[in-house]
Amino acid sequence: MKLHFLGTGSSYPTTKRGVSSLALQQDDGSIWLFDSGEGTQIQAQKVAISRQKINKIFITHLHGDHMFGLPGLLCTISSQFGLTEEQLEKEVPHVDIYGPKGLRRFIYTALSLSRSPLIFKYCVHEMVPVASQYSEDWEDWDVDHSEPSATHPSELPGVTVEPSVMEDGNVYWKLIDNEEWCVRAGWIHHRIPSFGFVINEKDRPGTLDKSKLVSLGVKPGPVYGQLKSGKSITMENGDVITPEMVLGPPIQGRTLIILGDTSDASPLAHMIQSCDVVVHEATHDDTLVDKAVEFGHSTPSQAVAFSKSVGAKVLLLNHFSQRYSPSSKESLKEGEETVALLEEQAQAAAAGTGLSVQCADDLFVYEVPGTR
Amino acid sequence: MKLHFLGTGSSYPTTKRGVSSLALQQDDGSIWLFDSGEGTQIQAQKVAISRQKINKIFITHLHGDHMFGLPGLLCTISSQFGLTEEQLEKEVPHVDIYGPKGLRRFIYTALSLSRSPLIFKYCVHEMVPVASQYSEDWEDWDVDHSEPSATHPSELPGVTVEPSVMEDGNVYWKLIDNEEWCVRAGWIHHRIPSFGFVINEKDRPGTLDKSKLVSLGVKPGPVYGQLKSGKSITMENGDVITPEMVLGPPIQGRTLIILGDTSDASPLAHMIQSCDVVVHEATHDDTLVDKAVEFGHSTPSQAVAFSKSVGAKVLLLNHFSQRYSPSSKESLKEGEETVALLEEQAQAAAAGTGLSVQCADDLFVYEVPGTR
Ligand SMILES: [Zn+2]
Ligand SMILES: [Zn+2]
Ligand SMILES: [Zn+2]
Ligand SMILES: [Zn+2]
Repeated sequence: MKLHFLGTGSSYPTTKRGVSSLALQQDDGSIWLFDSGEGTQIQAQKVAISRQKINKIFITHLHGDHMFGLPGLLCTISSQFGLTEEQLEKEVPHVDIYGPKGLRRFIYTALSLSRSPLIFKYCVHEMVPVASQYSEDWEDWDVDHSEPSATHPSELPGVTVEPSVMEDGNVYWKLIDNEEWCVRAGWIHHRIPSFGFVINEKDRPGTLDKSKLVSLGVKPGPVYGQLKSGKSITMENGDVITPEMVLGPPIQGRTLIILGDTSDASPLAHMIQSCDVVVHEATHDDTLVDKAVEFGHSTPSQAVAFSKSVGAKVLLLNHFSQRYSPSSKESLKEGEETVALLEEQAQAAAAGTGLSVQCADDLFVYEVPGTR
Repeated sequence: MKLHFLGTGSSYPTTKRGVSSLALQQDDGSIWLFDSGEGTQIQAQKVAISRQKINKIFITHLHGDHMFGLPGLLCTISSQFGLTEEQLEKEVPHVDIYGPKGLRRFIYTALSLSRSPLIFKYCVHEMVPVASQYSEDWEDWDVDHSEPSATHPSELPGVTVEPSVMEDGNVYWKLIDNEEWCVRAGWIHHRIPSFGFVINEKDRPGTLDKSKLVSLGVKPGPVYGQLKSGKSITMENGDVITPEMVLGPPIQGRTLIILGDTSDASPLAHMIQSCDVVVHEATHDDTLVDKAVEFGHSTPSQAVAFSKSVGAKVLLLNHFSQRYSPSSKESLKEGEETVALLEEQAQAAAAGTGLSVQCADDLFVYEVPGTR
């Protein structure tokens, strides 16, 4: 499982740093994309991932630096799919898109006014924000976030995801729950409704001890699958073989937290007991904390504090102000900083806690430990 | 007067070629931008133009590769303007945007759903297409192109430009007509309503012959301006000095034709008797003419034929399929072509006609002769 950081800049793209986009590449090669700022489709060409493997896209919030690249990306995935008509008759690819209310309208408007057909089908599943996510002056600028009255020819109905309210008043949005994954969203403080995604990979059965099976007289065949899925089997001679006799310990699933822009992610901390990786913004360095918070953003120390509160092993920082050059830059001008400054601040804040911190520049790849 | 080709690719941007955008930099430094595909704001950083000098934007048609970069560009021009509140109280910058019906809705939707404020004001002037511009199957996909019921806080009312119909049935859209410029649009064949812009720089008064003025006893002062603007003056001694006595010949204005995607631009040829520069797409080379025309595009020979028909001096080709690498590329793979192929085909078609042809790769700058 790898995290490919396609764009790690805040606000607007430059030649040295693109805007937000992060590709989570799973062990089977499929890709979940988190955010798609302008230029994401170009950034994706610079890394060893196939855009056609993107089957889910998650948008953390509707600021342009997180979504202006989405229509173009969808068009290019479609035009470059390279499937024959025959292949399309057998199976039409499908992309699920998750994001805040209003996303359906944006995608529909961009794709239909540009008259862009798509060869795949897509659904937009919209999360309905809670009242706390709206600024006090929200109603001063009234914008229609409702779904449009028409749909794109390739659009299938999506789910409107209302928040699930727990007894203690905490909320979360349930997005995916299947054999392999549980993905929920939580809300985080920002200037507009912003979300973080809590991605739980489910535990998998342990590996079969093949030599033990052979010694018990169980030959390879469909029964191996039954045992692996937790069912006992009865041999011809009446012996019962239970999964516990032949299976190794379950392989623990990993938990990743991928956050949108935020000055304070604590509203979703209730969803997390511990986790492997947190991806958290650090738009400004610690000396600019007032500016960061004023604009709904964070500093390295704030990101560290959050990560500690959710028992994270690793913190990856992204969404840097364009003032911070990539760490690889050599001849720096007078007063020019790189993200090394933010990394130092984060590591100082994390000292002695066991939390490991790194800054992610564009094209940085992080391999999540435990990849099968 | 310079033409900065920011993006010269067709359909989707790549690391070697961005999608359509062209900056016309006038002698006074102000900039008119033609098309704004995704990534335009990044391309603009690579050239020596100031985005804050963009005061007019022309969109040839609503395909995504010509407009998906517009919302992000507007946001970044705004955030990077660098004007103080004091300066903004004195004068608020203004951007005029011209394009086909539907553009207002696209810009409004993108800017308002992303909740992007702008420090400048803008108007969207929409051109209403004529029936010939719609494909036969247009009604199979019904899309609302009307203006939205709300406006962006920075949006001022724009003009809805109906076509002006001439006696012979030819049409044009009148966009700008002032002391310095006359800009009209014409329609051109493509898969969706597409326009070309006919830009006439108006003739200017000749330069004042200062030594003659001195010999006639006319001292420097406001009277110089009067003479230059075509008014005679009367001296204290009763002598009348006419402009003809002291002005050099008028400086002839230049004419530029900047076209959107097209398989045939002849519908607007009626607007042009002769011109200095034509910017015309050549998506595919001459061997692929059937494919080009099928998708509403052109080849080099077609671009040459059009340019000859309108008495052009110079033809600049752009909007190349991504299969054609930039001419600067050195180690080519087996079967890889560069735009040199298209340039050769165009020059062969133009041989003996006096028409000069060049292919424009990204960041190519063309200086229009006659710059004052
Ligand atoms: Zn952001
Ligand atoms: Zn944001
Ligand atoms: Zn195009
Ligand atoms: Zn087009």
